[in-house]
Amino acid sequence: MEHYPKSIQELIRNLAKLPGVGEKTAERLAMHILRRPVKEAEMLADSIRMVKQKVQLCQQCFGLSDGPQCHVCMNSGRDSSVVCVVEQPADMIAIEKSGAFSGLYHILGGTLAPMEGVGPEDLRIRELFERIERDGVQELILATGTSVEGESTAAYLVRELSARPVRLTRIASGVPVGGDLKYVDKMTLKCALDGRHAL
Amino acid sequence: MEHYPKSIQELIRNLAKLPGVGEKTAERLAMHILRRPVKEAEMLADSIRMVKQKVQLCQQCFGLSDGPQCHVCMNSGRDSSVVCVVEQPADMIAIEKSGAFSGLYHILGGTLAPMEGVGPEDLRIRELFERIERDGVQELILATGTSVEGESTAAYLVRELSARPVRLTRIASGVPVGGDLKYVDKMTLKCALDGRHAL
Repeated sequence: MEHYPKSIQELIRNLAKLPGVGEKTAERLAMHILRRPVKEAEMLADSIRMVKQKVQLCQQCFGLSDGPQCHVCMNSGRDSSVVCVVEQPADMIAIEKSGAFSGLYHILGGTLAPMEGVGPEDLRIRELFERIERDGVQELILATGTSVEGESTAAYLVRELSARPVRLTRIASGVPVGGDLKYVDKMTLKCALDGRHAL
Repeated sequence: MEHYPKSIQELIRNLAKLPGVGEKTAERLAMHILRRPVKEAEMLADSIRMVKQKVQLCQQCFGLSDGPQCHVCMNSGRDSSVVCVVEQPADMIAIEKSGAFSGLYHILGGTLAPMEGVGPEDLRIRELFERIERDGVQELILATGTSVEGESTAAYLVRELSARPVRLTRIASGVPVGGDLKYVDKMTLKCALDGRHAL
């Protein structure tokens, strides 16, 4: 890398911090940026700065947003009586992409992990409880992951919320659609069998 | 992508213009940038801007440089009587990385391609001729690629320079070191046989 001018070395070093980008790829990206018009490079640089300046968490659901409220919370066409609880903003986006949900979201910001010192007060659980009360939420879909941490976080919420007049549901676990049974792990197959339904 | 806030969409669009980066990868990179400290994102944005502001072509060899002359041309320890002629700045860097050359370079900026309207006046051939005259170059190593265009550009230079008192050489073609003969193409094998040397 020392064969490049200093400014290119600097760019390669910064690009190589991106996930999945090694030094070779960073070199290739840097050479591409050098070849392209100044305009295009400036658009890229500006959009990196902008995203850090503009993106904040929605005050209601804690999803990614350009303003105080995200476009899902601001959409009056969404069913505000159903709230889907997820771990991270990326989970909300995955569900939005599916187009299968028309309610609102609540992003916890992680999962309970006592071994790593993450307790209920580190997640947005207090805000969730307040929201259920304030907005008259009728159903809470627990869509945390199916990892041990995701399951135990869901179990914690069930325990804490069982006394409240809100319906609690959990997303189904089972064989992925289009999935081949022989490639599905044992736990998933067990879930798929336990969760079987009549035809 | 429309599920992201506008500023993230903009970043994803700009990242997806990079070579080998599709929309999925661009999403992943954007989410990484969002998660990292502002400082790190700004360093990346700044280095993109800087590279476009600072990098210029060396006035002597037309290699990449942060100033009017590149660090190879400015290095008085290099042998200025031997000049290696390459197509692009990246070729110069590849040879520098090998550590096998201690002379200077001349970057043509491409190859002759009459079908695409690239003639001698579009490359830095006039500058090369002037340089040979001015700097008393004794050997010119023609290291253009071994593609049809690279070969014909080398042949053109040989024709034009044959009357001048400069030694012309061409880099050797043959089997790559560590290469398995059965994976080497026919033309390369022919070159390796034609270029055989006594032991």
